[in-house]
Amino acid sequence: MRNLKATIAYEGTNYYGWQVQPNLPTIQGTIEKALYTITGEKSSLIGAGRTDAGVHALGQVANFRTNKQIDETSLKRALNSLLPPDIRILNIELVPPDFHSRFSAKAKEYHYRVYGGEVVSPFHYRYVWQVNAPLDIEAMREGGKHFIGEKDFTAFQVGDARERNPIRRIFSFEIVEEDEFIIFKVRAESFLKYMVRRMVGLLIEVGLGKREPSEIMEIIEEKDRDQARKLAPPQGLFLVKVEY
Amino acid sequence: MRNLKATIAYEGTNYYGWQVQPNLPTIQGTIEKALYTITGEKSSLIGAGRTDAGVHALGQVANFRTNKQIDETSLKRALNSLLPPDIRILNIELVPPDFHSRFSAKAKEYHYRVYGGEVVSPFHYRYVWQVNAPLDIEAMREGGKHFIGEKDFTAFQVGDARERNPIRRIFSFEIVEEDEFIIFKVRAESFLKYMVRRMVGLLIEVGLGKREPSEIMEIIEEKDRDQARKLAPPQGLFLVKVEY
Repeated sequence: MRNLKATIAYEGTNYYGWQVQPNLPTIQGTIEKALYTITGEKSSLIGAGRTDAGVHALGQVANFRTNKQIDETSLKRALNSLLPPDIRILNIELVPPDFHSRFSAKAKEYHYRVYGGEVVSPFHYRYVWQVNAPLDIEAMREGGKHFIGEKDFTAFQVGDARERNPIRRIFSFEIVEEDEFIIFKVRAESFLKYMVRRMVGLLIEVGLGKREPSEIMEIIEEKDRDQARKLAPPQGLFLVKVEY
Repeated sequence: MRNLKATIAYEGTNYYGWQVQPNLPTIQGTIEKALYTITGEKSSLIGAGRTDAGVHALGQVANFRTNKQIDETSLKRALNSLLPPDIRILNIELVPPDFHSRFSAKAKEYHYRVYGGEVVSPFHYRYVWQVNAPLDIEAMREGGKHFIGEKDFTAFQVGDARERNPIRRIFSFEIVEEDEFIIFKVRAESFLKYMVRRMVGLLIEVGLGKREPSEIMEIIEEKDRDQARKLAPPQGLFLVKVEY
C-alpha cells in the first residue's frame, strides 16, 4: 500500500474542526468521504494537527494509505473537484511507509491574528479576533518570551484537555504588526490542546494591562491551572505549516 | 432634515445585491432596517452603485435623510453594532441637502479579480473568477484600450438591462497582475447595468484567444448586442470607490 502525504489548506468557519465526529461536518470526514468516492477504499486520514472547530489551515499535513492505482497529480485534481471550495488539496506526494504526519513532524507553526482597529473589514472578520481596546505590544512581547524553551506547561492544561505529558518545547514566539493586525507567531515541536489559544488569551490580558508580563513566568512555574483560562476565539488561529 | 453620506464596505456573497427586494436579503434593505431601529424613521438609503447579487464593495457610498438627533460617530457605531459582520459602515458625514450619492458622483471605480493559478485558496474563492486556462494578458490590455473614452455602449446593453442613454465615459481601463491574480481596474463617470462584467467577459474571450483584441472596437462600433453576452460571474467584482 502506498503511503501518501497531502498538504491541505482550509477555512474552518463551517466545520466542527479537523477530527471526524458522527453527524457533524469535519475537515477529516469531508476529505475521507471524497477519498472513498475516488478510491473505493475506506482510508483513514491522519492529520498532523487536530485543529479545533473554526480554526483555519494554510498548510495542514495529513497522510493516508491506498492501493488505488492513480498518480498523485490526478488524485489531487480529483479531490479538489469533489471537495467544497473551503477545503483545497495543495499537494500530494509519495512518502516512505513509516511516515506519520503527526509522529514524524519536527515542528509546527501556528499564527494567531488579532485585529486592533476600530472596524473589522467584511473580508477579514472570519479570520481575526477583534479586541476593542488598545494593546501594549511591548508588554505582550516581554510576556511571550516566557513561553520559549522546553517547559512543563501543566498550567495550560484545563479541564478535559489534559494530556499525559505536559512538557512541550517552544522554539520561537514572535509578535509582529502588519497594518492594523497583530500576529502572534509560534513555532514548537508540538502543542497541547488549546495551547496557542490559551497563550494568546493570556497575552491579551497582558496587552490590556490586566496582568504583568512576568506573571506568565509565574503561572508556568506554579503550574496553576486556574490562571491561563482565557481562550482566544478559534477564528484567529491558523495552522501555517508542519515541518519534517 | 440632515442629509448624511455613508461609506460602506460589504461582502456580497450572502445578499441579493444592493437594491431592496421583497422577502430577500439585500444590502440596502439590511442597512435601512438597522437605521429604522436606531432612528425610528423609515429612511430611504440611496446607493451610488446598485451592485448585483454576489458583488462586493470596498467603498460604496449611500446617502439618507434623518431628523434624529445623533452625532455621526455614534450613528456609525450603533449601525455597526446592529449590522451583520459582512456589512460595515466605514464613515458617516454630514453633506449639503442637495448631495445625491448617484447623481452627484463624478467617477466610480470597479475592480474585477480573476485567478489564473491552478488551485484557488479557500480564503479567496469568494472573491475571484477562476479561469482554468492560460490568458494572454497583452492581448487583453490591447482589447481593453478600446473601452476608453466617451462611447455609445449599446452593444453592452442586453435584454432587460437597457437604459435610455447608452453613452458612457470611461476614464481608464487597466489590467494589473498581482501574484496569481489578474485585476481589471475600470474608472468611469457611470456604468450601464452589468457593464463591467460584460467588459471582463469579452476580454477573457480575447485572453483565451477566441477573439482578436480589435474585435472589441468592432463590437462597440457595430452596436451588436449579440456579441458581448458573456457575463463574468459576480463574485470577482468590487465597487472600490465613488468620487465626488
